[in-house]
Amino acid sequence: MHENPHNILNKNTAFLAYCLLDRIVDDYFIVLESYNNRVEAIDKSLFKNENSDILSKIHRLKRDAVRLRRTLLPLRDVFYQLAVRGDFAIFKGESTVYLRDVYDHNMQLIESLDASRDMVLSMMDIYLSFQSNRMNRQMRVLTVITIIFMPLTVITGIYGMNFDNMPELHWHYGYFMVLGVMLCIIIGLLIFFSRRKWL
Amino acid sequence: MHENPHNILNKNTAFLAYCLLDRIVDDYFIVLESYNNRVEAIDKSLFKNENSDILSKIHRLKRDAVRLRRTLLPLRDVFYQLAVRGDFAIFKGESTVYLRDVYDHNMQLIESLDASRDMVLSMMDIYLSFQSNRMNRQMRVLTVITIIFMPLTVITGIYGMNFDNMPELHWHYGYFMVLGVMLCIIIGLLIFFSRRKWL
Amino acid sequence: MHENPHNILNKNTAFLAYCLLDRIVDDYFIVLESYNNRVEAIDKSLFKNENSDILSKIHRLKRDAVRLRRTLLPLRDVFYQLAVRGDFAIFKGESTVYLRDVYDHNMQLIESLDASRDMVLSMMDIYLSFQSNRMNRQMRVLTVITIIFMPLTVITGIYGMNFDNMPELHWHYGYFMVLGVMLCIIIGLLIFFSRRKWL
Amino acid sequence: MHENPHNILNKNTAFLAYCLLDRIVDDYFIVLESYNNRVEAIDKSLFKNENSDILSKIHRLKRDAVRLRRTLLPLRDVFYQLAVRGDFAIFKGESTVYLRDVYDHNMQLIESLDASRDMVLSMMDIYLSFQSNRMNRQMRVLTVITIIFMPLTVITGIYGMNFDNMPELHWHYGYFMVLGVMLCIIIGLLIFFSRRKWL
Amino acid sequence: MHENPHNILNKNTAFLAYCLLDRIVDDYFIVLESYNNRVEAIDKSLFKNENSDILSKIHRLKRDAVRLRRTLLPLRDVFYQLAVRGDFAIFKGESTVYLRDVYDHNMQLIESLDASRDMVLSMMDIYLSFQSNRMNRQMRVLTVITIIFMPLTVITGIYGMNFDNMPELHWHYGYFMVLGVMLCIIIGLLIFFSRRKWL
Repeated sequence: MHENPHNILNKNTAFLAYCLLDRIVDDYFIVLESYNNRVEAIDKSLFKNENSDILSKIHRLKRDAVRLRRTLLPLRDVFYQLAVRGDFAIFKGESTVYLRDVYDHNMQLIESLDASRDMVLSMMDIYLSFQSNRMNRQMRVLTVITIIFMPLTVITGIYGMNFDNMPELHWHYGYFMVLGVMLCIIIGLLIFFSRRKWL
Repeated sequence: MHENPHNILNKNTAFLAYCLLDRIVDDYFIVLESYNNRVEAIDKSLFKNENSDILSKIHRLKRDAVRLRRTLLPLRDVFYQLAVRGDFAIFKGESTVYLRDVYDHNMQLIESLDASRDMVLSMMDIYLSFQSNRMNRQMRVLTVITIIFMPLTVITGIYGMNFDNMPELHWHYGYFMVLGVMLCIIIGLLIFFSRRKWL
Repeated sequence: MHENPHNILNKNTAFLAYCLLDRIVDDYFIVLESYNNRVEAIDKSLFKNENSDILSKIHRLKRDAVRLRRTLLPLRDVFYQLAVRGDFAIFKGESTVYLRDVYDHNMQLIESLDASRDMVLSMMDIYLSFQSNRMNRQMRVLTVITIIFMPLTVITGIYGMNFDNMPELHWHYGYFMVLGVMLCIIIGLLIFFSRRKWL
Repeated sequence: MHENPHNILNKNTAFLAYCLLDRIVDDYFIVLESYNNRVEAIDKSLFKNENSDILSKIHRLKRDAVRLRRTLLPLRDVFYQLAVRGDFAIFKGESTVYLRDVYDHNMQLIESLDASRDMVLSMMDIYLSFQSNRMNRQMRVLTVITIIFMPLTVITGIYGMNFDNMPELHWHYGYFMVLGVMLCIIIGLLIFFSRRKWL
Repeated sequence: MHENPHNILNKNTAFLAYCLLDRIVDDYFIVLESYNNRVEAIDKSLFKNENSDILSKIHRLKRDAVRLRRTLLPLRDVFYQLAVRGDFAIFKGESTVYLRDVYDHNMQLIESLDASRDMVLSMMDIYLSFQSNRMNRQMRVLTVITIIFMPLTVITGIYGMNFDNMPELHWHYGYFMVLGVMLCIIIGLLIFFSRRKWL
């Protein structure tokens, strides 16, 4: 409405209708901007904290995108009928140019919303794979710990058996040799895992 | 049918057909509303309970969306032929305006259904990542428990061995020193894990 | 071909072509119905058995949907050229109405196939999350078992050590006290886990 | 070019252009067939071996689909301008029928490529869920093994403790009774797990 | 602008507008090429290293694709209004041909961007399944280690029990027989697992 609408001022009803429709669409720009700000804010915190709260936030973003779409799409149909198909006699001739402008704004809103929705879907995927990444790392730690300590448990178990005839038990340095072997196993496995980049 | 249809009352067949079609579409609004209510109800219980029942509920929602779509899409084609393409001679001139109204309602139904379907798909994703989140947490507990208790098991195993020459066994406070070392390991690891926010 | 085609009987070539095309499309309805029956059958067994066989069945459903689409889409183009664009001189005037009917049937087939494909995709997702659900439960069992038995192993390990000076070993009820402590740990953890709904 | 193009032979430039365009599109049919063969080959090996190599093969299929699309889509636009929109004066009247044929072939190529891409996406999903299935099974084995052996370890640990007063140790058949109890636990759990279809 | 624009030189405003629009779109080709180079670079490193850094890189690629789309789509609408719909009186007659050229370039940009976005989505999937593959392998290692060492722990536990009457303990070769049995279990399980391709 920044142009001087000199040639539609006399068509009062049409002008009023146009003003109202324009205002409705303009207000949605503010709604969408605050929505986009929310998306940006969550996007920034994606790789930082890990609380499950982020999940419900993303879910709320998705739900709001669906709701916004539900209100913008019927508007598009209305504007299409008024501006492009010209179903109503009120708007005709030059005045449809202004309406077409509102129609284009509405289309822009929908496209911008769809772009934001794409972002939210991507954030969801990233969050999921980020989590799967962390689980992978934990799994690796669990596996490494198990591989190192299970054989040690078996070794100590062997020399804890009560057989009458176990020659190693009577060797003077048997105990220290076993401790040495266990140390070698730990160091050897740590070297092995760090070479395979498991640590 | 809220407007007084004075100028199509004489076109009896067309008016009857319009009434029937309008009623069919209007009834779908009720069906869709109850569908949307179901979606909302499940959406609210997403982050609460964790029974696998929610999965089959979401699946049923998806299946019903597919079925509803299957009945609404052919209707759309029918209305398109009648109202826009004007294939049939019964509806012509002004009466197509009314039909176009029914056509628009039908399109609205389809768009609303698609929006709900998007919601259901999102609910599925959220449920899955919520679950993956919980599994992550369980994995972490499992890993922490294993890291804490496996070394303790090895230590008790070492002093349970039956070697003749194990000097520590004869120290007066050997037993209490080992208990102390084990306590230090537990506390140290707990501090370490709480610092890395694993707990 | 249920209507008496009195006014196109003299246009022999066009009528023959129409009959053939109509028959081709009608046969696809039978193909699609058997396809849909297969989808329904697998859908019902989704939540029952858990054999990996269901995976290959779903995969085959998807592959068949792709193949059906590949045969239906070119047909659509052919009908579009004949009925709507009117590229060929054989079909003209009234006879295109019949062809348009076949065209609409073909479109219905494609839409019905797309709906089924959506169902199959959803079944896949459901199967995957169902499985992830079960894995979650197994993980929980594994974690609970580990949390209960690992401390018990350490306790029995402690009193299996061979230190000279271990006062508890000489207490008259020491053994029974340790058994009691172990029982308390088991019961305490079971209560804890059942409160947190882990069991 | 199998039809005798008698009536466009005199329009030399247009005919040459048509021949070139037709050849370009025809060559793509060969490219797409070899592509489809690759898709079929990998599809058959999906459920057989389990090497991670299949992942990079699927990824290469996807990348090639994107590249093929990138070369086919601009062609479509060119043909659309030439055949349908008729931007260039060279092609006019009857000669556009031939061009439209090439245009339709190009469209068929794109649709066939899209169908193949759908197949590749499905293969990816199947491979992933197949893998998740196997992981599920491994997890189950791990859980079963842990549930069976952890209690046994605790039992042997209990009778390995060195308390002065442990009446069972002096029972004549105490050792054999403990072995019997351990056997019962193993058999009982195996029956339990095979009933719950975990094995 | 490589053609000599002799017949639009006198239409100064239109030519200037065309030059500006053409330059804007041409610059986007450079932007898109650098974007595609980034995609290619990450695509090559997909199967190599495993740092979680690649996740945030893919996420940034997605975000940039969304942003680029957000700037290219409104341009498309502008060009559509100018070149195809012809809303403005400045561009008319022959000059729209040039504009249509810019419009086609813009469409090419959007299609190329969409293709790249498809690639990025595919990379994400591949990365995820690659990771899931590695986790699968780790899980297998963990399961194999547990299956091998848990029974050994129980066996050493059995002969570490302190029952008065344990005949095996007094056999002369009892200790060596137990060591032999343990070795057999290890070798037997390794053969079993390598046959089932678990190793």
